[in-house]
Order: sequence, then C-alpha cells, then structure tokens
Amino acid sequence: MTTQDRWLLPEGIEELLPPAARRLERLRRELLDLYARWGYELVIPPLIEFLESLLTGAGDDLELQTFKLTDQLSGRMMGVRADMTPQVARMDAHLIKRPGPTRLCYMGLVLRTRVDGFGGSRSPYQAGVELYGHRGHESDLEVLTLMLETLAVAGVNEVHLDLGHVAIFRELVRLAGLDREREALLFEALQRQALPEIRQYLAAWALPVPNTDLLLALAELNGGTEVLDEAELRLADAGRGVGEALATLRRLVTALRQQWPELPIHVDLAELRGYHYHTGVVFAAYVPGQGQAVAQGGRYDEIGQVFGRARPATGFSTDLATLLLLGSTPTTSGSGIYAPSLADAALDQRVAELRAQGERVIRALPGADVEPRDLGCDRVLVRREQAWIVIPLAEAVA
Amino acid sequence: MTTQDRWLLPEGIEELLPPAARRLERLRRELLDLYARWGYELVIPPLIEFLESLLTGAGDDLELQTFKLTDQLSGRMMGVRADMTPQVARMDAHLIKRPGPTRLCYMGLVLRTRVDGFGGSRSPYQAGVELYGHRGHESDLEVLTLMLETLAVAGVNEVHLDLGHVAIFRELVRLAGLDREREALLFEALQRQALPEIRQYLAAWALPVPNTDLLLALAELNGGTEVLDEAELRLADAGRGVGEALATLRRLVTALRQQWPELPIHVDLAELRGYHYHTGVVFAAYVPGQGQAVAQGGRYDEIGQVFGRARPATGFSTDLATLLLLGSTPTTSGSGIYAPSLADAALDQRVAELRAQGERVIRALPGADVEPRDLGCDRVLVRREQAWIVIPLAEAVA
Repeated sequence: MTTQDRWLLPEGIEELLPPAARRLERLRRELLDLYARWGYELVIPPLIEFLESLLTGAGDDLELQTFKLTDQLSGRMMGVRADMTPQVARMDAHLIKRPGPTRLCYMGLVLRTRVDGFGGSRSPYQAGVELYGHRGHESDLEVLTLMLETLAVAGVNEVHLDLGHVAIFRELVRLAGLDREREALLFEALQRQALPEIRQYLAAWALPVPNTDLLLALAELNGGTEVLDEAELRLADAGRGVGEALATLRRLVTALRQQWPELPIHVDLAELRGYHYHTGVVFAAYVPGQGQAVAQGGRYDEIGQVFGRARPATGFSTDLATLLLLGSTPTTSGSGIYAPSLADAALDQRVAELRAQGERVIRALPGADVEPRDLGCDRVLVRREQAWIVIPLAEAVA
Repeated sequence: MTTQDRWLLPEGIEELLPPAARRLERLRRELLDLYARWGYELVIPPLIEFLESLLTGAGDDLELQTFKLTDQLSGRMMGVRADMTPQVARMDAHLIKRPGPTRLCYMGLVLRTRVDGFGGSRSPYQAGVELYGHRGHESDLEVLTLMLETLAVAGVNEVHLDLGHVAIFRELVRLAGLDREREALLFEALQRQALPEIRQYLAAWALPVPNTDLLLALAELNGGTEVLDEAELRLADAGRGVGEALATLRRLVTALRQQWPELPIHVDLAELRGYHYHTGVVFAAYVPGQGQAVAQGGRYDEIGQVFGRARPATGFSTDLATLLLLGSTPTTSGSGIYAPSLADAALDQRVAELRAQGERVIRALPGADVEPRDLGCDRVLVRREQAWIVIPLAEAVA
C-alpha cells in the first residue's frame, strides 16, 4: 500500500477543508435561523443508541443501513444513527411530551453502511424538521413550504416537486381484499411502472371489475396537477378514504400554486416512497439532471404508536452537502488584517480591539515568512507616529 | 424490561432537548466566530476512517477509546473518531499542504468506548484549534490565549491554569541514561507524586549524584510561578534542552501575566499529561471542585512525521457540553408572534414579512388549542380594520 492509499477515506465518506467547511457552517446557520423563525426548536439526538431504541418502528431498510457496535460497558448492541427522524420522534414522545403541536428541527452527521444517498454519500449532513401532534393538511403544507424555503435559502434552483399520497394505494388494496403477498407484488410492479405486468397480475387474480379498474387507474395517474381532476373521476367510487386523500392533495396544490406560482408540480398516485413508514401525503423535490431527490418528506402518523404515544407527525429532511453542491451558498470573501509578531502591549491591545469589532486579525509568527494575501488578509497593521493603524495591503507593499 | 428502560440511553451518551440544544448552538457559533477572528479556518473531519489512518501516531490510549466497525464495502476495519486532533493533523499534512503556518479549528461530536471524560461522557462535543508550522513560544502563547478566551466566552469563571513542559523529564531521563523500563517506572511514580517511591528507585538504581538530584528536583518542582526561579537554580546544570524549556515557560508566564494579571498559574514540571504524544509545553485549565481539566492542550511536534511530513504543531481542545454545564451561556429568551391559522393571502404575506425581518412567527394549526405563551410567544397577529397588525399578548387576552 502506498503512502497515498493509506490516507484514502472509505467509499462515500467525506471530509471538508477550509472554504467548503465554512460554506457548510454558513448554510447550517441560515437554515437553523429559518427554522427558528418558523417556531422549530433545535434538538441534538445522540450519535449512538441501543439498537432496540434506535430501530423501533423504523423498518428493515434502516436496520440494514445501521452500523452496529458492542457496548463494552453493558454488553448490549448499539447502532450509530443512520437517520435522525426516528430519534426525534422518540424525543417528542418520551422527553418533550407536550400535549399540543410540537415543532422540532435537527442537523448533523449520520452514518450509513451502504452507498445509496445523493452523490453516493454514506455520511450525509442531515437536516430536517418534524411537526408532531396535528393531523390536518395545514401541517403538511407548513412542512412542505419549509422544504421549499430551505432549497431557496440554499440557492438550489429549477426545483420541481413530486406529490403523492400512500393512503390511496393502501385503501384500494384493502377494498380489493389483496393479501400481503399480492400487495407486495403489486407494490413492487408499481414502483417500476411496469404496466403490462400489473395488467397480468390483475387478470390472473380475477378481481371484480371495479377493483381491477381502480388499481389500473392508479398505475396511470401521474403527470401534472390535472391528474387530480382525472383521479377525482376515475377513483370516485373508491370510498371515503380515497376521497379524503384526494381532497388533501387538492388543498395542498391550491395553496402551493398561490405561494409558488412558477413551481412545477408532478402528481404521482403510484409514488409510494417510504410506504411502510408513511401514512399520508409524501413529497420530494428534484432538480434537473439528478435522479435522486434533493429533499423529501411526508406524513407518518403511526410512528407515535411504537413509542407508546400515538402522535400524528409530518416532516422533511435533506442533506447539507447536497445543497452545497447544487446550490449557491457563497464562499465568504477573504478579508482580514495582518499584524506584526512584535511583543508590544499597545499592539496587543489594538489587535484585541479590532477582533472585538468583529475583524479577522492574523498575528505574524517570528521566522515564518508568509504573504498576508495568502492568508486572506487585505490590510495590515503598522506603527505610524507611536500609534498602531490599519492600512490597505497595497499601500504597505508600495 | 419496562417501556421506560427501553428508551434509556447507553451510559455516557447524551441528547440535548430544546433549550439546552439552542444554548449549545449559540456557544458553537460564538466560538467559531472567535476562532475565525483569530484567523483559524474551520475543517470538518470525517465521522469514520480506516483504522490505520485514524490511529496512526495516536498511541494505545486512543486505540482503546475507538469504536471499531467493519466496512461492508471494502472488508477493511474502520473506526469512529474518538478525538479529532490526529484527523486535523492528517488534513494539514496531506490535503492543505501549505508551506507556512496553518491555523485550523474544528467542532463536532466524537465517540469513545469508555467513560473517562468530564462528567463521564462518552460522546463529547469536541471543539479545538491547532496551529501547524511554527516552533517558537509565540504559537504556544497564541493557542494558550485562545483557550483562555474560549473559557471567557463560555462564561466559565475561576479558571486556573496548569503549565508544564514534557521535554524537561525527557531530557533528564536521557542524561541519566535510563532505559525504557526505568523511564516508565519513574514516569508512573511521578504521575502519582509518590516521592518516597521515587527516592527508593533512584537509590536502588545507583545513578550518579547529579542525576539523582536533578530527577528528585523535578518531583518537587510544582507550585506557583516562583517554581520557575527555583527550577532555574536546581536544574542549572541539566544542559541546554532543559534550559530552553525553562526559558519557554518563563516567556509564557511573563506574557500571560500581562494579559491575564488575575489568572492563577500553577507550574508543575512533573506534569506529563499526554507524554507519549506531546513534545513541549503542556497546559490545562481547571475550575474549583472539578478534578478533571475543562480544556487542555500542548505542543506535539512529532505528529507530522508519521504523516510523512514533519510539521511543528500546538493546539488545545475542550468539550462544549462541559462548557455549557460550568459556564453561563444564556438561554435565548422567549419572544415570538402567534399568528392565526386562517387561509388568507394578506395574512400569509404579513407572516412572511415578519419572518424576513427576523421575527419568530408560529402559525396556529386548526383544531389544536395552544396557549401562545407556552410556545414562547409574547405577541399575536390580529386583524384590525382590514390590516394584520402585531399586538402584545396581554392586550389580545384582555
């Protein structure tokens, strides 16, 4: 192994050097301030937890994505957080325990065993918000709007939104009386948009004609917001649950149209991302040329139950590294004052004053020959007639 | 196992709820801004690395403290960062590669297998700075001063400073010709300040009288800064290396006295914290009633070598959670505006304007009966004669 190889990082693991790290910190602050202005309070979930706490209600996918560790102190198995959403739900249910709606946000590194995130990362810098304790479309709208605001703050342009609602498929499956195995087959084919295969299944299972028609309709109902008009016709006989889901989507589309008139909205009723986890509206934001969503979320009312406290919930999450890559968070421009190394009390005091005023002041170190410009300094501190004053670098060099 | 037990966190693992998490974020920003004003650039080291990269040059203690994981993609062993200092040294040597002095800072969660940090934490929120590429006492002084500034920003009072220099012991051992085993015995006894034991060893080894005297002096040389006067006398014949070390300590004490006249300084020449890692000045900050240091650092010039690039280095690190506990970072006071849930374009616009002005505005959710005061709101948004205006909560209730 060469010296070079030795320092290579594992696949999908990144580190951030000075200008990039500063950009990330800047975006972090802007987003946390945005969430605070909307009333979302910051929580910091632990980096590791016991597995049974970390994975409760989270599904098989998260289990596969979670690195496992043995706790030398207790002998029990622990996991490194791969997604902060379930942790935050636990914190809402067990620690915060407010009766009314609770708005929480979080931000930090998570770790995954496999590369499947945006840009092949195994350690996204996850950011997100969750709103607990409210069931109506108003909370979905708030979270969805905040997701779009997040992308706007990060300078991610040309966003388009995908909207779906997992309760529609779930309700049609129930009406058709499909067992788990058939539900799974159909689910899988829908995800691949394999229409001929879906037709084969439905013919083979010999369901009543109305049920077959409804399930076929679902596979075809995707496109612009006009899909909702068509769905209201073709799914009119699908019962109250489906009707309510469509009404929710309609309200969201109407409200979004008002706030973001230019936003392309794609409605896809067969979009079932996080089906085993989500219970209502699901949404995701995409940008051109990128196959994976840059931010995603939805409603997951059931999660409260496994934590011993049923709470409706809706939220979204994203990855700050992805937002930095696709957006336009500016690099802070180089500005600073280079000060001599000289041991002098008046100089020390002047440096302290300048820093207290928010200036970046770099002190020279004896014997180290450095170009102030290379350290991002545009000014220097010099002594003129017993006083220490700041002058432009150009003037000092001249 | 009761439901309660199920959600207990592993020993030494913490999570932060709303007011505490916000306080930590506030302190995080203040410290990163402080470091930026001193010219320190932020880096974000990876959460995991291959073990051979993570532990190179770091010593056995860090290896024991590091959680190990198998990388499913490469089959190689990885470790979760237990200390960011060696990671940052690698980044300086291999990625940044500047010829002159480089100032870096970092902040984030680390993970340790065993409880031995302040307050029994296994997941400190580590913060620190490192200055590479300069060998003189000026860089030690800069880092030391920044450590004291850090404690001042965090509102940690009654700090006292411990100062030592590992080169003195190392040089006396070399002069006495002690082998590794004897060095280790003496080192261990010095750490316990076991004077009778040290006398026994020195007598048993039958060293020349001058060497015995010098090593005995070392064990006794701790106290106020007057210890330096005594050391200059008693270690006068110990050669140039020891003389230079004492001169460095003298310069640091003189400069610190000027900047922090009230700071209690304890000089302990047998203080050898991080002996296998440090090469020069070592220092630590303590507060009354706490046995463990709240911040510590020192010079470690050798670390560059194992990274294939010899670079002098000095730095300090601390734990934000400890600083929050012992300091006085204020909780942000509750201020905010509660706005109705009503779907109304004029209201939406007013809410957006207030948020753009930096106000915290929480939108009511239909059906959720909430006291605005419980959400930290001191004002409400109401409609008066076709306009949405902000009024004090007390006025609205009256």
